[in-house]
Amino acid sequence: MSISVDAYVSGNRQRFLDELNAFLRIPSISTLPENRGDIDRAAAFVAASLRGAGLENVEIISTSKHPLVYADWLHAPGKPTVLCYGHYDVQPVDPVEEWRSPPFEPTLRDGNLYARGAADDKGQLLTHIKAVEALRAVRGAPPLNLKFLIEGEEEVGGESVARFVAENAGKLRADVALVSDTSMYADGMPSLCIGLRGLVYMEVEAFGAAKDLHSGNYGGAAPNAVFALVELLSKAKNRRGVIQIPGIYDDVEPPSPAEKESWARLPFHEKEFLKREVGAKALTGEPGYTVLERIWARPTFEVHGIAGGFTGAGAKTVIPSRATAKVSIRLVAKQDPDKVITAFRDFVRKKTPKGIRTEVRVLSASPAVLVNPGHPATDAAAKAFEAVFGKPTAFIRSGGSVPIVGDFARHLGIPAVMMGFGLPDDGLHGPNEKFRLENFYQGIRAVARFFEEYGQ
Amino acid sequence: MSISVDAYVSGNRQRFLDELNAFLRIPSISTLPENRGDIDRAAAFVAASLRGAGLENVEIISTSKHPLVYADWLHAPGKPTVLCYGHYDVQPVDPVEEWRSPPFEPTLRDGNLYARGAADDKGQLLTHIKAVEALRAVRGAPPLNLKFLIEGEEEVGGESVARFVAENAGKLRADVALVSDTSMYADGMPSLCIGLRGLVYMEVEAFGAAKDLHSGNYGGAAPNAVFALVELLSKAKNRRGVIQIPGIYDDVEPPSPAEKESWARLPFHEKEFLKREVGAKALTGEPGYTVLERIWARPTFEVHGIAGGFTGAGAKTVIPSRATAKVSIRLVAKQDPDKVITAFRDFVRKKTPKGIRTEVRVLSASPAVLVNPGHPATDAAAKAFEAVFGKPTAFIRSGGSVPIVGDFARHLGIPAVMMGFGLPDDGLHGPNEKFRLENFYQGIRAVARFFEEYGQ
Repeated sequence: MSISVDAYVSGNRQRFLDELNAFLRIPSISTLPENRGDIDRAAAFVAASLRGAGLENVEIISTSKHPLVYADWLHAPGKPTVLCYGHYDVQPVDPVEEWRSPPFEPTLRDGNLYARGAADDKGQLLTHIKAVEALRAVRGAPPLNLKFLIEGEEEVGGESVARFVAENAGKLRADVALVSDTSMYADGMPSLCIGLRGLVYMEVEAFGAAKDLHSGNYGGAAPNAVFALVELLSKAKNRRGVIQIPGIYDDVEPPSPAEKESWARLPFHEKEFLKREVGAKALTGEPGYTVLERIWARPTFEVHGIAGGFTGAGAKTVIPSRATAKVSIRLVAKQDPDKVITAFRDFVRKKTPKGIRTEVRVLSASPAVLVNPGHPATDAAAKAFEAVFGKPTAFIRSGGSVPIVGDFARHLGIPAVMMGFGLPDDGLHGPNEKFRLENFYQGIRAVARFFEEYGQ
Repeated sequence: MSISVDAYVSGNRQRFLDELNAFLRIPSISTLPENRGDIDRAAAFVAASLRGAGLENVEIISTSKHPLVYADWLHAPGKPTVLCYGHYDVQPVDPVEEWRSPPFEPTLRDGNLYARGAADDKGQLLTHIKAVEALRAVRGAPPLNLKFLIEGEEEVGGESVARFVAENAGKLRADVALVSDTSMYADGMPSLCIGLRGLVYMEVEAFGAAKDLHSGNYGGAAPNAVFALVELLSKAKNRRGVIQIPGIYDDVEPPSPAEKESWARLPFHEKEFLKREVGAKALTGEPGYTVLERIWARPTFEVHGIAGGFTGAGAKTVIPSRATAKVSIRLVAKQDPDKVITAFRDFVRKKTPKGIRTEVRVLSASPAVLVNPGHPATDAAAKAFEAVFGKPTAFIRSGGSVPIVGDFARHLGIPAVMMGFGLPDDGLHGPNEKFRLENFYQGIRAVARFFEEYGQ
């Protein structure tokens, strides 16, 4: 069966590429109002593609922002249902002068297809649709039930899809979600992401004097909002990188010994990571944990931005009256976002320096997501991945969050198979984004194989 | 003699006001290129005014930016020479909608003359010129030798006058400088400022990763430049406000017991200061020192501004690769700016967190200035002030810097009499700047009296 899918994919290489190119030529940048028409064109492209693959009940669903595309095929009674997710919107292209070929004119160089959205996420979402097409062509019908939900706001917060999932649990009922919006751990290494960190994102603002004051006339007696915020934030971690917010580590569940062992076998090279990816003088973080543990399985406190006082050219001797910082706490398994927010608010209240008033505003909060590697869909995906790529599947985690995975867990009660075909150097969100063309074809084969395995 | 000056000033009230109004109508905003013609008109006004008062060798001196005006009268052999300083340029007027009357249409309300530059510094510099005019009118000639140096860049850094002073020590030779660009301590209270803090103004920049990184993928292992700068700066003071830079207090000379006693007698009300001037929840600063001691006689460390990472609306999960802060250390008597800079550089180098590179850039450095209250010119000024205002002269300091006073000390080796007639609520640099009209007339009388006292 899978040989037939292989052959079908091989026989349709050029047409699949042409279709992907047509999709990539639509500049569906979700953050720019002037591209609103392209958003609609991209949604229509997805709908047509789904229809072409034999999906039914194809709908373009209006939202308060960008349309969702829904489709299903539900004629495999007794078989599980997979909810396929993807997004047709893309990031802006700045700085456009750094692109070697225009971002919306897909260009093949050295086996890579360069275009905005090639890996994130147009090329990857198309693997799901083309897998269905291939399965129908070679066996007449998909081996299980399918639902598709494709959104157009992933790069701008994904509010509409979150609301739709919350309000349409019945329509979206499924056994597992399939999300192809991540990368493989390394070139040629099939990898399933089975854990994501959660995220609490907050703003902290400090207020001192009623207005900015002259540091000659008041320096030494008036509170300085910038320095107060600096003092406050500095207390959130000690110099070894251990978070000092009381209780923050209470509910942290460590990875199992088996998981830790498998991470130790991954081709991770700390020196290369420091040199090629980070480019700093040294790595930092909690002592006693490997880099992968620190990124995948430990909570973090980061300051994402800070602003206050005079920051123009030259000198201005002002005592700033206010200052703001954006901060986040990444969460790992078993940590409750609300409990963490309360702990942070308490910390800020207790550490706010004299003469200063502080405010904490929560911008978003989502828990960590962990998928049991023993789940049947995960097993099926691992087998499919291994069969197509010829190497054992690695079970990895990601230090980031994929909010939709949290929404599926929360509202539909289902886990997600995160089966990504991107590579770590695909340059998502930056100039010269690419997708390895071979990974596009192998991705189609792997998704089809996953449907077959899971449908057995 | 001084009765005659009194009478001359009284008899010329309207003409003096008309002349001041004409001066104030010139919008000589030094920072705006479109007002360059007004700068020249203001310089010409000053030159004409000096000639009218009988000064000689009046010159408008071109510089690489705004012209200086020089004049002298040197026909009192055996008598001291006073170098009178002032500036004809003014601050911008934003927010112009907050002015009750147009900033360049001087308007009298309740005995105050409202206009940009009324107190800072056109009204005050005119007291020097009118004092000379009055003395010539009532006694035929000034009682001592006079030089005038008036600049047009005080509000934009004063580079030209600083260079001119450095390069023309011979031409500017004098026994003392007279600077009327400060305020009286309180309404009706003659006050001489005999101490200014120095200032070392620096930028500190922290560099982490080669570029901004995603906090999901790298958080826990990659250094964060914003957090590193926060950590570093937080160590500059302890939570009681004591500076932690090693050696920073080594050379600090405390005020004499007599000076401290006189400060204790000043009408300073801490609660009012907190409520009306600062408007914060509490005052801060080193324990064990009064507010005036903290502002006038203690070094400070302030962060004037900080910037790094994402500070727009919403959330971006970036690990910032760089961050910058503007910081200053105010200096008091006996502290050497170079020694302080070295101490700060050492501190930054030692406290720079792991994985981070830091840079310190010095933007300016000037030492504190102290005038011995026993200097004959200071005595003369104090007597003159007291005679005209009918109250004893208070000897105060200022926590700020007046760079020209440092230039006079450094290049000419002379102290400055800082005899100001402004009031603390004159609103310099803000909307509705004013000058108490009576202080203009009393200022003319006090300056004339100072020339007489010092010429004896």
